[in-house]
Amino acid sequence: MVEGLGERRIIEILLRQLEVMPGVPVPLGDDVSAIDLNDGRLAVMKTDMLVGRTDVPPGMSLWQAARKAVIMNVSDLAAKGVRPAAILASLGLPRGLTEGDVEQIGRGLNDGAREYGAYVLGGDTNEASDLVISCAAFGTCEKRFFMRRSGAKPGDLVAVTGPFGKTAAGLKVLLEGLPASPKVRETLVNAVLMPRARLQEGLALAQTRAVTASIDSSDGLAWSLHEISRASRGGFTIEKLPIAQEAEEFAEAHGLDPAELALYGGEEYELVITVKAELWKRVEEAVKKVGGSLTKIGLATREPAMLFKGKEGAVPIEARGWEHFKPHSK
Amino acid sequence: MVEGLGERRIIEILLRQLEVMPGVPVPLGDDVSAIDLNDGRLAVMKTDMLVGRTDVPPGMSLWQAARKAVIMNVSDLAAKGVRPAAILASLGLPRGLTEGDVEQIGRGLNDGAREYGAYVLGGDTNEASDLVISCAAFGTCEKRFFMRRSGAKPGDLVAVTGPFGKTAAGLKVLLEGLPASPKVRETLVNAVLMPRARLQEGLALAQTRAVTASIDSSDGLAWSLHEISRASRGGFTIEKLPIAQEAEEFAEAHGLDPAELALYGGEEYELVITVKAELWKRVEEAVKKVGGSLTKIGLATREPAMLFKGKEGAVPIEARGWEHFKPHSK
Repeated sequence: MVEGLGERRIIEILLRQLEVMPGVPVPLGDDVSAIDLNDGRLAVMKTDMLVGRTDVPPGMSLWQAARKAVIMNVSDLAAKGVRPAAILASLGLPRGLTEGDVEQIGRGLNDGAREYGAYVLGGDTNEASDLVISCAAFGTCEKRFFMRRSGAKPGDLVAVTGPFGKTAAGLKVLLEGLPASPKVRETLVNAVLMPRARLQEGLALAQTRAVTASIDSSDGLAWSLHEISRASRGGFTIEKLPIAQEAEEFAEAHGLDPAELALYGGEEYELVITVKAELWKRVEEAVKKVGGSLTKIGLATREPAMLFKGKEGAVPIEARGWEHFKPHSK
Repeated sequence: MVEGLGERRIIEILLRQLEVMPGVPVPLGDDVSAIDLNDGRLAVMKTDMLVGRTDVPPGMSLWQAARKAVIMNVSDLAAKGVRPAAILASLGLPRGLTEGDVEQIGRGLNDGAREYGAYVLGGDTNEASDLVISCAAFGTCEKRFFMRRSGAKPGDLVAVTGPFGKTAAGLKVLLEGLPASPKVRETLVNAVLMPRARLQEGLALAQTRAVTASIDSSDGLAWSLHEISRASRGGFTIEKLPIAQEAEEFAEAHGLDPAELALYGGEEYELVITVKAELWKRVEEAVKKVGGSLTKIGLATREPAMLFKGKEGAVPIEARGWEHFKPHSK
């Protein structure tokens, strides 16, 4: 991002300036922040900013952009097992927006929040060069149900709530104009324009108390695995890459590596979790009950290595995310 | 702000799109938003965005800008009598920032939060054309102490926590290069670069339970009075304009109207409150106890008129704010 300084470096520099709240329930750098309400509950909050230039691909309407700005935040709460109650939205609006444009943004915020049972409770408007939609999501949860990213233990199963690669492929359709059959195209583009947060899955997972680590995959599957691994101080052996059928087809048609699309994409909002192996059935059932599905993709290991063991042997999974759409991120 | 559409119109359009949370404890459009924690407490939150282009005058360092982005949010919580616990910060960073720049921003956020007992708990970084610092402040309070802007009753006294006009004058120094004596200049410029939120005053005021309406004056004294009047459905007769000595001197030296500076400035973070007349002494004492001061400036009236009754008769106080620095706002 900022020239010369990568996003990780910037975050490092920023974090170094911050005094740490004594007894803070969630460490700085996790997906969400939290405060102890001192009655068994946590107040959980998250802020994530959408910037038109880097987060709104061609073909995305303002309604979709505003909705996405909400989803980005809801997804992080979902990964922690927290139901969003309130959304605040700070807007930077470029000149030249019409009444209709502003209406679309308002409706997108509202619809994104309502889709997950939350309400937009307030915000702020400003003039800016870029379209900027900075949302904050807020909710409470019982402390004992809160899911962290730091609890993965050797032997735990790694699982995801859905297949990967559709967004990376969809961005290639929207940004590079790569063709696809109408049906595949619709699925891929839809993944980009209408992302969904796995809130029901997250809430159900939290209730099982069998999940040892959880994160959303907005920075890509590989990146999410590395984040859990960093926080939990272990590694992963991935045995099955959860590649979406449509991403597979698209990759084949264009001579792309489907594993690349699935691992190093991003802007996908599946949950990546680790589960105590002996409790797998219970966890799988819980997700099925709310209409979701869980796919086992590998195993947590004591060694910090991050490997994909496919038919052609073990390949390291790198700590990088989607770099096309956000050329300077990570 | 956005060409053709004023900020008020934009907010109207946005608010029209939002479904209202059943039983929401604070109406949309108040200084803060809140959720009922169902145990006598409210979770109170606020988001406000600083945009470099419109909110950072020449002479303001990045440390000061980041600190100010925090103060803006703390001030709104202060006006409600809520202690800020956590600050989140979403950053849009232009290319070309140095490590030192990022450090200044991080320190400014931290120092702004710590100044009021809060901690920065998280955030998000992005690349953007403008410098954008969007903060969200969060705190809890007992519901019975929460101060609204809607409770002013005819006969209530109107009071402020400090004098006005320094920021408007300071901006004229910084933006237009108007001269002032070193001592006056320092006070005026300092008001712009190092704003302070009246948190101790706000907390003390809330405890008295004698305050019927409260708002911060970040959009200017006149604007704040009009907001209380709109929410409380009454008017005000202002008998004494709380003009800062330095603003008075500066106005005189430059042939400016000091009342204009005090009424229609902005970016000032005093509290504007109404108080039950019979409880004035108690309220005044409470603020004195925390090292602050309260100045009576007028009376709430049944008629919705907003008048300044000076030596030259009654003049209407208009519903407008500072329009120089943010040429399109309001």
